[in-house]
Amino acid sequence: MSYTIKDVAKQANVSTATVSRVLNGLSGYSKETEEKVLRAIKELGYMPNAFARGLVSNKSNTLGILFPEVSSQFSSKILRGVEEAAHELGSSVIVCNTASQGQRTMKYLELLSEKRVDGILFVSEKITEEYYKQLKSMKVPVVLVSTESYQYPLPFVKVDDKHAAFTATDYLVKMGHRKIGMIGGNIEDVIAGQPRVEGYKQALANHELSIKEENIKHSKGFSFKDGFNSFPDLIKSAPDLTAVFAASDSLALGAVSSAYRLGIKIPDQLSIIGYDNLPIAEMAIPPLTTVAQPLEQMGKVAAEMLFTMMSKGIIVESRIMPHSVVERESVKRI
Amino acid sequence: MSYTIKDVAKQANVSTATVSRVLNGLSGYSKETEEKVLRAIKELGYMPNAFARGLVSNKSNTLGILFPEVSSQFSSKILRGVEEAAHELGSSVIVCNTASQGQRTMKYLELLSEKRVDGILFVSEKITEEYYKQLKSMKVPVVLVSTESYQYPLPFVKVDDKHAAFTATDYLVKMGHRKIGMIGGNIEDVIAGQPRVEGYKQALANHELSIKEENIKHSKGFSFKDGFNSFPDLIKSAPDLTAVFAASDSLALGAVSSAYRLGIKIPDQLSIIGYDNLPIAEMAIPPLTTVAQPLEQMGKVAAEMLFTMMSKGIIVESRIMPHSVVERESVKRI
Repeated sequence: MSYTIKDVAKQANVSTATVSRVLNGLSGYSKETEEKVLRAIKELGYMPNAFARGLVSNKSNTLGILFPEVSSQFSSKILRGVEEAAHELGSSVIVCNTASQGQRTMKYLELLSEKRVDGILFVSEKITEEYYKQLKSMKVPVVLVSTESYQYPLPFVKVDDKHAAFTATDYLVKMGHRKIGMIGGNIEDVIAGQPRVEGYKQALANHELSIKEENIKHSKGFSFKDGFNSFPDLIKSAPDLTAVFAASDSLALGAVSSAYRLGIKIPDQLSIIGYDNLPIAEMAIPPLTTVAQPLEQMGKVAAEMLFTMMSKGIIVESRIMPHSVVERESVKRI
Repeated sequence: MSYTIKDVAKQANVSTATVSRVLNGLSGYSKETEEKVLRAIKELGYMPNAFARGLVSNKSNTLGILFPEVSSQFSSKILRGVEEAAHELGSSVIVCNTASQGQRTMKYLELLSEKRVDGILFVSEKITEEYYKQLKSMKVPVVLVSTESYQYPLPFVKVDDKHAAFTATDYLVKMGHRKIGMIGGNIEDVIAGQPRVEGYKQALANHELSIKEENIKHSKGFSFKDGFNSFPDLIKSAPDLTAVFAASDSLALGAVSSAYRLGIKIPDQLSIIGYDNLPIAEMAIPPLTTVAQPLEQMGKVAAEMLFTMMSKGIIVESRIMPHSVVERESVKRI
């Protein structure tokens, strides 16, 4: 036979609310009451049941996190930070791989709603009207990670993309480069695509260097393959470049791989700087100089924001995380 | 006011069990009954509550998965496969990062127990007596991934480590190499450490090549840093090697990076083969030849085994997944 919280309350001669308070480590009862409850639990062999506790507290101690691609290094670093913060705060994390598909994302949001998650982290993707309506109806806190929404009032955690791209390009100029190209991601992406190109242009303008459209290649996305495929085109249309800013580490490593095939030596013949500082940046040959986003820290901060919103019922401010150049060996001073 | 399943049952004039069957998409009721229940749900504005459904069905439609390091490419590929299978089967996945710490692992197992997960996947780590006792007390199916237990009867999904190491070494011999070294992981690890060394030795023996202990370096673990640090020692004690088998891709890439520093050209002066086929293998310079483990598929198969055990209440057989050499550019025929 399986006992419920009611049986425990009866046995201990207290209310179910008191049993719940003891189980959840809240205050508002005497040491004596606590002992009575714990004794009753022991006598009955009662096991706290997450379902029953959830019904009483209406809390699941669970967060949901949605990634476009859960297996990327980018996602897994963020997940690491989220998981760490959640663990410290006694919560667990349900991961959802949306594959950037609207229908799949909606299905996940409904699932998370049914599971009564206490909050949601939404990573790297655009919030559509459909998503927002569903999120709003769930009445739980939401924090965006590495993205933001111009349409909807949701707090976010990210670096300043334009500023970080500016810093990368500015670094190349300070290393003596004047002919600097760029491999961008999707230019229709207003959150991560456009601002990085704008930051690159801003840095050139600040140093009174001319901005030439043939020095910029826009890819479909931010992947290794995109970089691998874009690099030959860039070099063909702008053969005199001495340095390239790639809008992600994956793009940069694709470019480095393509350069290796073409017999172009990095950094002797061409310098390349990336963006992200994924673990692969350090493992690359040559080790990749890049602008670091503190991904693990971003995950941690996002989870903590969610917990603040959950416990205090307030909306927290968005956070702009610091970025920094990590100097390795893919950029040469000229 | 919030309605419960009892209110729905009363309104529809059926039993709560029937409402539950309808909600869970089971059989055993007429079309007419289904309509009555759905109408009652609509009239009351009843929202199915995962807690309440859990209390009725004693199912949470949730799996727990424990990783030693959730942010590694190895883990994230497995997670991708697990998540995919779980999604298709209507379940969600709680991820736990144990950091290989016993206390933390136990805390997670207790948490998963309280959350009434329907099953547990345990990845890459040794099952201790303490873990096993806790797992057994939870009375849910458990599947091991990329590990196995000699002590406890738990089904697993993995490749045959010894056989895969044999295949890697045998490939080097077939490419003309006779002086073949090895960078191993932790030799005290009976699941992944020892069998890979045994497979290497077995391949040499099969080709009547002598086995020399100075041609083998054992690292503390399987990381990039371990490979980076072990490589110079190996080359010092065995300068005439023409090829090296590294017991993980991370070890191999650490060795390649170290070779780059030492001015040793891969594969012109030395061939290197890895083990795993992580995404970074393809991105490396030169692209890494390696023995592939089908990690994503392993995750998928493990989740499916768990679902079979959950739904049929049987123990399933362990699975040995196929491995294969992926030829890229880090091994030269001599």
